[in-house]
Amino acid sequence: MKTIQIRASREYSVLIDSGLLSHLGDEAAKIRNPGKAAIISDSNVWPLYGRMAAASLEKAGFATEKFVFPAGENSKNGATYLSLLNFLAEKHITRSDFIIALGGGVVGDLAGFAAATYLRGIDYIQVPTTLLAAVDSSVGGKTAIDLPAGKNLAGCFYQPRLVLCDTDTLTTLPEEIFRDGCAEVIKYGILYDPQLFAHLEQTGLSFDREAVIARCVGLKRDAVEADEFDLGLRMKLNLGHTLGHSIEKISNFAISHGKAVAIGMALVTKAAKCPDTGRIADCITAFGLPITTDFSAADLLSAALSDKKRAGDSVNLIIPQAIGQCVIQSTPVTELLSFIEAGL
Amino acid sequence: MKTIQIRASREYSVLIDSGLLSHLGDEAAKIRNPGKAAIISDSNVWPLYGRMAAASLEKAGFATEKFVFPAGENSKNGATYLSLLNFLAEKHITRSDFIIALGGGVVGDLAGFAAATYLRGIDYIQVPTTLLAAVDSSVGGKTAIDLPAGKNLAGCFYQPRLVLCDTDTLTTLPEEIFRDGCAEVIKYGILYDPQLFAHLEQTGLSFDREAVIARCVGLKRDAVEADEFDLGLRMKLNLGHTLGHSIEKISNFAISHGKAVAIGMALVTKAAKCPDTGRIADCITAFGLPITTDFSAADLLSAALSDKKRAGDSVNLIIPQAIGQCVIQSTPVTELLSFIEAGL
Repeated sequence: MKTIQIRASREYSVLIDSGLLSHLGDEAAKIRNPGKAAIISDSNVWPLYGRMAAASLEKAGFATEKFVFPAGENSKNGATYLSLLNFLAEKHITRSDFIIALGGGVVGDLAGFAAATYLRGIDYIQVPTTLLAAVDSSVGGKTAIDLPAGKNLAGCFYQPRLVLCDTDTLTTLPEEIFRDGCAEVIKYGILYDPQLFAHLEQTGLSFDREAVIARCVGLKRDAVEADEFDLGLRMKLNLGHTLGHSIEKISNFAISHGKAVAIGMALVTKAAKCPDTGRIADCITAFGLPITTDFSAADLLSAALSDKKRAGDSVNLIIPQAIGQCVIQSTPVTELLSFIEAGL
Repeated sequence: MKTIQIRASREYSVLIDSGLLSHLGDEAAKIRNPGKAAIISDSNVWPLYGRMAAASLEKAGFATEKFVFPAGENSKNGATYLSLLNFLAEKHITRSDFIIALGGGVVGDLAGFAAATYLRGIDYIQVPTTLLAAVDSSVGGKTAIDLPAGKNLAGCFYQPRLVLCDTDTLTTLPEEIFRDGCAEVIKYGILYDPQLFAHLEQTGLSFDREAVIARCVGLKRDAVEADEFDLGLRMKLNLGHTLGHSIEKISNFAISHGKAVAIGMALVTKAAKCPDTGRIADCITAFGLPITTDFSAADLLSAALSDKKRAGDSVNLIIPQAIGQCVIQSTPVTELLSFIEAGL
């Protein structure tokens, strides 16, 4: 088992190993005396892992409740959030209880936001079951829901008490979902780590699961510890995300987050005339991920202008100068259209 | 002008004076370069003070937007909250802009919660226009919405950047609303300050506005600085609130917060056999506030059991032992019915 310690406003561990899900109850009971555990999951994940998670918690002495919503980004909205809050209140969940986020990024973001705000904050545990959630969204305390105007426009910074990543769960999901997560893994290579990128180029989809996940979580830890509240350096993790979010939004989330980020990274790399543009495009393609979009520059611009990372009349873009070396560049809104056009 | 400095996770000032509203823009501009200011208000307050607030902000260089919702506790719900988030996104409010909460406790709680969560947190300024908001809800960073199951069941701890209290606004509102705030003023006397209580007994409704408000804010500051996240001492501010919230809820908020708290304080004082029960009841009555309810002990119990201050199988009640001396008492749920009966 690999353990990575995160020292943010709250300190917690990320545990990574095969077979960990059956130890969820024991690990939760180490944090506090068993009370209630409200398991939040979606219609894809609950049938696969819900019973095992609940059984582990119950064996350790927790009384469990479950809230299962329809899988998909379209559920990550205000209506599901309010339903979840009402569920927690109806089940009399208190500040002595746990929320368990069992699923991918949508489950983690939504359950985390409910945990951050129900009773002004109760404890929660992230149990990522997708690669994307394991290397990105389950670590670092960003929680969110989408608004009609854009993705992740409401949320909180709110750290979990524990992240428990059972690597077995990542590979039993459809390969499509696994590949989505690979976009974020490639992102870490482009952002920080030429060696990780080279490993991915060599192995493709058969990369070393535990080692690569632990490396990505370690890189995310560094970004979170340096800038928990996303005021500077942590912004780099948005590589490919400004245009990626626009693509997701215009497609009404028919294009997945991973695919959209893959396209976003390819576009921004090309637009910035990065000398590694070819290698980056090839690596993304080798993972079965797209690098182009049919959406127009004007549509992408319009969607990007409601992006939350926008401060006044400029947009912060993450620009790759080379693999392992990226910079934050404040780009005036007036120059954004021609920049996007250069990337298409 | 009286200025009280609050040193919580964020440091900020509470300014108290007559005629301050016309200086709102200048005070906001001291905090940051003018961008947009989204004024959140309700249908009672906007017609009275909206124009003055907007004019002051615009004179200082802010572009203003307004969101006005129907006045009343029934608006402090998930639906209004989501509408407000959508409004902020549609108006392209960014992290460089301000939210201005112009109104009473409902406006402040709702606008503060939106500020805490829109884009994972943007700056806001509290401009309390009721006595209740001035001495209580505008200071200390508790933000919230109600859920069907109970009051303030979702929210965040999120401190404002400034609290600007124009005492002129407090007295132009209907006396009914002013009296509501008096319940919280009396509460500070019972909790911490026999001298304040004696002043209120002597003067009744004609108490010294600026001095009493400043004293209450100072007492609230002490409670917030000692326990920002409501894990211990700050809980004392809930004197009268556990049963008060139940009364509000059973009445479907037809009984105002101030009246409900007044009844709650009278009930808990009587139930605890406090030797000052008579003086407390007389003072509350002298302010035109109620001290009894027709609701049954069973109904009050049932509503109290969904109260967020409940940890497991007990409820924390604030018990007055004498004027100026109160203790936190963990009361088993099984004893709560007979306690409530003793207070009725």
